[in-house]
Amino acid sequence: MTPLGTLLEQSTMTLTIQTLNNATLAEATHMLDGVYEHSPWIGEQALSQRPFRSLAHLKYSLVQVLEAAGQDAQKGLIRAHPELAGKAMQSQTLTAESTNEQSKAGLTQCTPDELAKIAELNAAYQSKFGFPFILAVRGARGTGLPKSVILQTFARRSHNHPQFELEECLRQIHRIAEIRLNDKFGVTPNLGNDVWDWQEKLSTHTDPGYAELGQLTVTYLTDAHRACAQRISHWMHDCGFDEISIDAVGNVVGRYHAASPDAKTLLTGSHYDTVRNGGKYDGRLGIFVPMACVRELKKQNKRLPFHIEVVGFSEEEGQRYKATFLGSGALIGQFDPAWLEQQDADGITMRQAMQHAGLHVDDIPKIKRQVEDYLGFVEVHIEQGPVLNELNIPLGIVTSINGSVRYACEVIGTACHAGTTPMNRRSDAAAAVAELILFAEQRAMQDCGSVATVGQLMVPNGSTNVVPGRCQFTLDMRAPSNAQRDAMVNDILHELKAICERRQVRCTLEETMRAAAAPSAPAWQKRWEQAVDSLGVALHRMPSGAGHDAMKLHEVMPQAMLFVRGENSGISHNPLESSTNDDMQLAVDAFAQLLNQLSTEF
Amino acid sequence: MTPLGTLLEQSTMTLTIQTLNNATLAEATHMLDGVYEHSPWIGEQALSQRPFRSLAHLKYSLVQVLEAAGQDAQKGLIRAHPELAGKAMQSQTLTAESTNEQSKAGLTQCTPDELAKIAELNAAYQSKFGFPFILAVRGARGTGLPKSVILQTFARRSHNHPQFELEECLRQIHRIAEIRLNDKFGVTPNLGNDVWDWQEKLSTHTDPGYAELGQLTVTYLTDAHRACAQRISHWMHDCGFDEISIDAVGNVVGRYHAASPDAKTLLTGSHYDTVRNGGKYDGRLGIFVPMACVRELKKQNKRLPFHIEVVGFSEEEGQRYKATFLGSGALIGQFDPAWLEQQDADGITMRQAMQHAGLHVDDIPKIKRQVEDYLGFVEVHIEQGPVLNELNIPLGIVTSINGSVRYACEVIGTACHAGTTPMNRRSDAAAAVAELILFAEQRAMQDCGSVATVGQLMVPNGSTNVVPGRCQFTLDMRAPSNAQRDAMVNDILHELKAICERRQVRCTLEETMRAAAAPSAPAWQKRWEQAVDSLGVALHRMPSGAGHDAMKLHEVMPQAMLFVRGENSGISHNPLESSTNDDMQLAVDAFAQLLNQLSTEF
Repeated sequence: MTPLGTLLEQSTMTLTIQTLNNATLAEATHMLDGVYEHSPWIGEQALSQRPFRSLAHLKYSLVQVLEAAGQDAQKGLIRAHPELAGKAMQSQTLTAESTNEQSKAGLTQCTPDELAKIAELNAAYQSKFGFPFILAVRGARGTGLPKSVILQTFARRSHNHPQFELEECLRQIHRIAEIRLNDKFGVTPNLGNDVWDWQEKLSTHTDPGYAELGQLTVTYLTDAHRACAQRISHWMHDCGFDEISIDAVGNVVGRYHAASPDAKTLLTGSHYDTVRNGGKYDGRLGIFVPMACVRELKKQNKRLPFHIEVVGFSEEEGQRYKATFLGSGALIGQFDPAWLEQQDADGITMRQAMQHAGLHVDDIPKIKRQVEDYLGFVEVHIEQGPVLNELNIPLGIVTSINGSVRYACEVIGTACHAGTTPMNRRSDAAAAVAELILFAEQRAMQDCGSVATVGQLMVPNGSTNVVPGRCQFTLDMRAPSNAQRDAMVNDILHELKAICERRQVRCTLEETMRAAAAPSAPAWQKRWEQAVDSLGVALHRMPSGAGHDAMKLHEVMPQAMLFVRGENSGISHNPLESSTNDDMQLAVDAFAQLLNQLSTEF
Repeated sequence: MTPLGTLLEQSTMTLTIQTLNNATLAEATHMLDGVYEHSPWIGEQALSQRPFRSLAHLKYSLVQVLEAAGQDAQKGLIRAHPELAGKAMQSQTLTAESTNEQSKAGLTQCTPDELAKIAELNAAYQSKFGFPFILAVRGARGTGLPKSVILQTFARRSHNHPQFELEECLRQIHRIAEIRLNDKFGVTPNLGNDVWDWQEKLSTHTDPGYAELGQLTVTYLTDAHRACAQRISHWMHDCGFDEISIDAVGNVVGRYHAASPDAKTLLTGSHYDTVRNGGKYDGRLGIFVPMACVRELKKQNKRLPFHIEVVGFSEEEGQRYKATFLGSGALIGQFDPAWLEQQDADGITMRQAMQHAGLHVDDIPKIKRQVEDYLGFVEVHIEQGPVLNELNIPLGIVTSINGSVRYACEVIGTACHAGTTPMNRRSDAAAAVAELILFAEQRAMQDCGSVATVGQLMVPNGSTNVVPGRCQFTLDMRAPSNAQRDAMVNDILHELKAICERRQVRCTLEETMRAAAAPSAPAWQKRWEQAVDSLGVALHRMPSGAGHDAMKLHEVMPQAMLFVRGENSGISHNPLESSTNDDMQLAVDAFAQLLNQLSTEF
């Protein structure tokens, strides 16, 4: 055993929160040694927050110390880290942890080509940002990232804005610290790992043509889709669900019985279909988190005063057919028979696809739920946005699923010579749209939770030396309530009219989408808040900007959602979508707390 | 003879400016009866400006009265006009002129289909604007527009902004008044008509494939191009030039000798090539205006104290080969031999094209002018912009040909979910560009004569529900001096940097073009001013936003340009490019004045 190995062993002596809370400041500071590279002051300052209620609480206290420390201290911390696979790694000045972690990732066994590539990346990165590249090389599952992924991440992040990259390095440092703390405290997020692994296994099923590309695509009733349904139903069986079925639209439904058969039912779940080249967690997380809870209940032979019904919705994304929310819609009786005649890109109708999958179209109306049998609906979902990632908070309480309106617009001005037309004699269509973009941005910013986006923008056949005569664009506006949304939409369209008047241009508008807001049921939102708080996790309430299956159930029963932090700025509908085993563990813990809470109420 | 004919005859009794100046106000007002529809007050008020120095002076005084009268009076005047081919035309309340003019245009002999179409257009127009459509149906040449052109114009103008269309109607009314005044004063713009007709005849030559489309395209050394050169040289011969030649690059050069052979030479001219689907006047006007003057000198057997050299430049637009200003460049020794190997779209090199045209490539260096032989260069050109058209002023004095810089740019932000990404967590590439567009607009507006344009603008692969991660655009910035241009460019690029910093996005810039400004030689600009003023035409000094052959000559000798008003907001590089016989007459008159002026100086 090498001296490094010995050091490592010493550093993983098991701690408890109790021990840490009761220790002197000097002892406690020493206990946190090595969590942040050469920066014992972070632990020391965090300890003023004692007593910690949980490991999650300690982790967040450490985050807050660094947040408050300012950029100089933050950069100092970053600079205390070694370069990736750099020469400094051999130096005695480094903590054993860094070296050991990089060694685990295979970075100490690079080929000369790889070393050259890394040296090049290190030099360019250092020169652009002024600090070394930091990556938690043990990754989201804690078991180490492949060398290829590390190099891809390095190259990708080199393009980031310096301010963003500084924050990303701090996030990576917090993740490194989290894993080190888990080691110190002898904590393994077993349920989070299982949820993570279920998602990983499910992602091996992908539609024809995408496997070769290494892409995940699971659209309605393809072979991969039906394989997913089968696996989910098998896992539900293994977990100890009492009834498992695949219903008439392909939803996988698992029921775990209450202590009493005439009890009401808690409905939960999310979708298992994906967008094309999507992520592994969008939807699926909301199936596996409650599944893990049911398994634990079954292990303990525990029955609650309500049934638990976990649904893997078969269709939410509307990729193969234009029938978004098909799975959850069917549960509230909203299956449109006209959809059956829709054809996919290969000319296969939905009816044919359902027949091929052995689904009985005639049974669809029968799966509509009797609302009076249900307590309500809860859904766990990966955030699909940057908020929790930026705040370094693992869970978020959803206050409302935003209502949205979309428009396709065109401003028509006068195309003219960019050299010969004085500024005050122009009817520049693009300048008019530019004004609107900035107004929409400001207007959305005024509200809490509103967003407004010009996502498509084009001067058709524009020329460098021609003042734009036309400018096409889209408007996407969302807010936590219909009233808040409509007030914003009204102001933005009013301003568009005023801009057109002022600039002597005209505008065409076409409303392309309108969806009502789905505010969380206050009692159910409160239950999520209590569950999250009981874990010692900071509370963060936020609207959901994206649509979810909960929007459909909202129409007939109370609902509330829990968000789980995504890595990589919460990117979604993208292979980079990611979340950690620790965050998934917290989601399972929160769900279990919610079940406990409900058990005391009903 | 009909009663209408009788009325017409009475209304065309010949007046003189002298008579008008000497008459009592009542008499003079009566003399101007019928010039503006049922609005004798316009003439009456204009008469307070007496004595008029010229018919042009009277016309502009009338314009000024209406400009000062305000929108109510302007709309009242417009509403006094009959609908196009409408029932009211039969009414006794109309002036004979309107009816007669519409009758001449064939509008009283419409088919039922045409009448139905006109009725539909009239109704839609009246409902949108609240006044009838006005068009000077006798047109730019004063001889009447074809019915098809009238209907196309009607349909096109129906799309205009109400404020613009109000002003356009007033411009049409002034043109109607101009023609009526010409009739009253027995004035025919003969030289303007000849210049107009030369351009019309030259426009019958067009490159293969464009004739069928009714489009004018004359690119370097095509059959149509060489036919144009032949015709210009024949017309020069007919006008009485002493030497006529087609030089080694295809320039048509006509020299009219001075009284003394060792006199210096005044150089003038413009280009006879066109852009694809271009207008009939761009370039060519600057050949025919001095040609008309030489013809008049020859008629009078008058010799000046300097030679006049009129050059029809063979290439300015850079359409067939990327060799802009080839013709004028060759005169200052700037022919780049590398151009000879450039291929056109059919793979024909410039060298082959020149050989096919019988041009001697080896002689190109010989056509470089000896600067000491020349007094300077003047160029007449259609404005190619809206300024003179909007000001209702027929001629403009060019103060400088603007220097320009162009950039192709891309802002790179972060693409993210338009629903889930809060406004304050975005790096929206399009919003950054929107800020820049508005800044550039404001910054250019601060200067006199500067322009800045974002002509190309696109979010590549933008989606309605995705915050733009990239936005590509072009910047075109021009100003009357290099210093003014560079100060503006500096401010705009500085702001772009600041925006990128503030919004955490980054930007790439590529300079794609840079051209130095060519300020007019003060003495030569002054000569144009004196010439224009001597005609009683209002002086308007303005920079040229577009590039011209004068930019090339500017490098070796003093130069100054005269602009001629374009119709249709000065549109150019477009078949709608147009100018009137009256404005061309004034250009010939101004050129003749310039020659007179020069004769007294040298």
